[in-house]
Amino acid sequence: MANVVAAYCLLRRSSRKLFDGRQNLNFFGSIRFVNSGLTYNFTRTRELSRQDVCYSDQIVSKHICFLRASGNGVLTSFPRGEGSGFQIHCRYLASMASTPVRNKSFSTVNSDDIIYFKKILGEKGVVEEEEKLDDANTDWLRKYKGSSKLMLQPRSTQEVSQILHYCNSRCLAVVPQGGNTGLVGGSIPVFDEVIINLRSMNNILSFDKVSGILVCEAGCILENLISFLDNEGFIMPLDLGAKGSCQIGGNVSTNAGGLRLIRYGSLHGSVLGLEAVLANGTVLDMLGTLRKDNTGYDLKHLFIGSEGSLGIVTKVSILTPPKLSSVNLAFLACKDYTSCQKLLSAAKTKLGEILSAFEFLDINAMDLVLKHLDGLRDPLPSSKHNFYILIETTGSTESHDKEKLEAFLLQSIESGLLTDGVLAQDINQASAFWRIREGIPEALMKAGAVYKYDLSLPPEKMYDLVEEMRGCLGAEANVVAYGHLGDGNLHLNISTRQYDDSILTKIEPFVYEWTSKHRGSISAEHGLGLMKANKIHYSKSLETVQLMADIKKLLDPNGILNPYKVLPTSVLPQRGEEEPKKEA
Amino acid sequence: MANVVAAYCLLRRSSRKLFDGRQNLNFFGSIRFVNSGLTYNFTRTRELSRQDVCYSDQIVSKHICFLRASGNGVLTSFPRGEGSGFQIHCRYLASMASTPVRNKSFSTVNSDDIIYFKKILGEKGVVEEEEKLDDANTDWLRKYKGSSKLMLQPRSTQEVSQILHYCNSRCLAVVPQGGNTGLVGGSIPVFDEVIINLRSMNNILSFDKVSGILVCEAGCILENLISFLDNEGFIMPLDLGAKGSCQIGGNVSTNAGGLRLIRYGSLHGSVLGLEAVLANGTVLDMLGTLRKDNTGYDLKHLFIGSEGSLGIVTKVSILTPPKLSSVNLAFLACKDYTSCQKLLSAAKTKLGEILSAFEFLDINAMDLVLKHLDGLRDPLPSSKHNFYILIETTGSTESHDKEKLEAFLLQSIESGLLTDGVLAQDINQASAFWRIREGIPEALMKAGAVYKYDLSLPPEKMYDLVEEMRGCLGAEANVVAYGHLGDGNLHLNISTRQYDDSILTKIEPFVYEWTSKHRGSISAEHGLGLMKANKIHYSKSLETVQLMADIKKLLDPNGILNPYKVLPTSVLPQRGEEEPKKEA
Repeated sequence: MANVVAAYCLLRRSSRKLFDGRQNLNFFGSIRFVNSGLTYNFTRTRELSRQDVCYSDQIVSKHICFLRASGNGVLTSFPRGEGSGFQIHCRYLASMASTPVRNKSFSTVNSDDIIYFKKILGEKGVVEEEEKLDDANTDWLRKYKGSSKLMLQPRSTQEVSQILHYCNSRCLAVVPQGGNTGLVGGSIPVFDEVIINLRSMNNILSFDKVSGILVCEAGCILENLISFLDNEGFIMPLDLGAKGSCQIGGNVSTNAGGLRLIRYGSLHGSVLGLEAVLANGTVLDMLGTLRKDNTGYDLKHLFIGSEGSLGIVTKVSILTPPKLSSVNLAFLACKDYTSCQKLLSAAKTKLGEILSAFEFLDINAMDLVLKHLDGLRDPLPSSKHNFYILIETTGSTESHDKEKLEAFLLQSIESGLLTDGVLAQDINQASAFWRIREGIPEALMKAGAVYKYDLSLPPEKMYDLVEEMRGCLGAEANVVAYGHLGDGNLHLNISTRQYDDSILTKIEPFVYEWTSKHRGSISAEHGLGLMKANKIHYSKSLETVQLMADIKKLLDPNGILNPYKVLPTSVLPQRGEEEPKKEA
Repeated sequence: MANVVAAYCLLRRSSRKLFDGRQNLNFFGSIRFVNSGLTYNFTRTRELSRQDVCYSDQIVSKHICFLRASGNGVLTSFPRGEGSGFQIHCRYLASMASTPVRNKSFSTVNSDDIIYFKKILGEKGVVEEEEKLDDANTDWLRKYKGSSKLMLQPRSTQEVSQILHYCNSRCLAVVPQGGNTGLVGGSIPVFDEVIINLRSMNNILSFDKVSGILVCEAGCILENLISFLDNEGFIMPLDLGAKGSCQIGGNVSTNAGGLRLIRYGSLHGSVLGLEAVLANGTVLDMLGTLRKDNTGYDLKHLFIGSEGSLGIVTKVSILTPPKLSSVNLAFLACKDYTSCQKLLSAAKTKLGEILSAFEFLDINAMDLVLKHLDGLRDPLPSSKHNFYILIETTGSTESHDKEKLEAFLLQSIESGLLTDGVLAQDINQASAFWRIREGIPEALMKAGAVYKYDLSLPPEKMYDLVEEMRGCLGAEANVVAYGHLGDGNLHLNISTRQYDDSILTKIEPFVYEWTSKHRGSISAEHGLGLMKANKIHYSKSLETVQLMADIKKLLDPNGILNPYKVLPTSVLPQRGEEEPKKEA
């Protein structure tokens, strides 16, 4: 017990919160001083109460760059870099990640609030019907369920500003929502947050045919923008399976990746400007339409990928590439993962400027799609293959592109990289090929329960994780792998009959630790949302997370914007709590 | 006088600083209440003293999004958006921008400091020799001159961290310096700031041939990286005239654009990760090597283009494109600016995926280069042309690219867009063509005094400014225009025999106001530096600038990092001054 107290003293003499008592943890562990070799063990269980907020020491925070916190797992920190340091190992037995507690400083919606909102938005803009709220409270995976009693549908930036100004003054938490197609619980309320849905802000504001710059409101559905641009001779720089429902504001807020990133880069490059409303209602006009603008800090990037936790994106200005006349799609087969990688390297050099997608799926993904989705056929039916690759090219001259692609494919077959392949002969066949790749999430949903992971990994390591995962799980689960190989983005899906904690403990924290060990990202393109807010340390250093929290506090001091998401609650003190002191 | 007092009262009842008395302004003007139509005039001159700090009112800051402040110009604010509001017009007669005052809260370097720095950096890392300091105190345009007595040359991130931690605790201001090739006074000390030069941190840390990801230290010279990659079969995604001296850390810190942006996008897209040291010495490890990583806020973007005012970039991870085998360069002539624009539109569609540069220079630029640079010849000597265009293509198949380019050129000649043109026959001729374009800054330096402006404008408006400027200046100056037409980036240069305030008053604020009126950027790719710190409002809204200032205060509370640059001193209170209150 003395050791527990010693450990405790160290933890309490601190300025930075590691974890707090709200999760009601039982823990035991040890503190080892690296220099002296001395280890303090504290193996007795100690029940933490609401008051037992634990902070890391200044010294701790200086030497420990890495902190892991995961459900039913081990909380471990490692010293990094030169110099002396020490290690802390604490095993805690409750899951921190899965059960956030409602922030008591948030108010609850009352009848006066409803009257106010109806005054500014009209009856139509204020949704209280249970059925509509049910949809908005649930994500499409049916994994997360909120209990919001109110959805607001503003029609202008001015209205978003008025809503937020009011909610901030009343300390009403809000969740911004677009198409609600996210996979990490980022767009649904966790408790009774007010839902602000942007769907009524769906106007295209301008399009310049010389520069290809599109300006539109956040609620525009991606597919509608794609159709609009098609008529103008342009394309969107991003394309994803959810395009029929997802909104551009949500795409930007989550920095959606998708199928064309290998060619057109991320939204940090394509988005030229945006307008965002801060928690206090301030409208930030950063809606530039210039390819180059180096006047001060480029603040729009803070809102790209911050999942609505720093502000609500209301308008977007985006650079769209010209639609090129020649698009080709090949559906290919490889015998092993090494061949897939070599094919990627070769495609980058040989297809160079015309390569526009390089996707992969494994045999498990292919089998699943063919089993669960109607009307799909195997494009290479003569035999089964371990890996399938989709290569798309986009260029301005059909004959040139065909010549390049055919030469590349011929060479790849001759060198043994490819075992089979077929070129789409028309747009219908191309659509059918894409349907296989894009239908995998739907097939997984139909197959039963699914644990979804969206990882960035060095391409050469990527499939090792899939095989190790299969080794761990054996016959208990179907481990399915597909993704954007060209960008090093693996979608690892573990399909089981039903959700089962004993399976989850085999997957997590293993998947996150493995990813972290290989300096990967635990969220390549889906964001952290609610699912992984407490897991950010697997991919980001303690100092970086601390700065994120400081920025969150600066922009949203009451924490009303999309609470419980993106950042661990432990780094964001709730109102009334003592604020950790900061070194100047 | 009563009106002046009335205006004054309004200005003083405020929480946000508009401008302060340090510039010793004389001003007169009016306040007009839009709703009531009532106007208060204050035409009497009022001498402002040190104590006369003027703030904007809460109400003012809500309704007025736009504020202009320029040398010898008009300080004007406009209400924007719906709702009531009012306007303030103040004319002030002194130049705010040109004369910053040394921040008295900064310490002066003493002998104890030198001892400390020698202890951590060794004798070699501490430069006090006058000759070396002379170079580091002056920019290459010889326009700015600091008086630093000390330059430090750290060899590692650890050393940068130690230096900054110490300087922050001593309140010693610092200026980070790379190749010192900037054009806006961003990399030279304004007073006696300690220079931290990164040139000794010049190691390439890793290069992955499959992904094309390069990780290197900030002090690597761009040309050395280009050579290194050339051997590996890759290229840097940016290329600029100063490549022989500029360092990648400086490129990233200023978000340098250059010649290839039209093809490979900005550094916000290409830089995958970086390491930066904050003012207090905290090292932020954001050195990811992944194309996709959506775990929390993407903070690296804060350091791209913030000109060393938020942290010192010490390492960079950058995505490099494969070197494609076929590069072609055409030197072309157009009779008018409309043809240049049409040619750009056509090139984007017809050359599509292989277009890698689209540069322009006007006849004045061409004449200047031919007159002042040795060994250069006009590639199209048969007659003079109003405009010259360089089009570069880069692709993987020589025959395809030649075919595309020749067809495009033939069509452009037939349609009358081109009046003449020549294709580079070999690499020497291509270098000679590039030398004309890249030699313009040098030729301008040799021609005498030069006022340089780096503007982003909608391409269709761009040349109107040049012609209006010629109209204003008549025979007094040679107005020279060139730049990255494909990105809407104009380099407007006004060449005169000597610097003359009477000419400057004809150029400024005209150039900035014109740019602002057309929603352009007053700094496309050069940054704001010292030259334009007080002019940021021409391109950014008041709310956005205020948030930049809040972020600066959060990351660098003592303001030691590159002071007097990027942001107006008026939004950054100096130590000991009353901090404006903030609304939650």
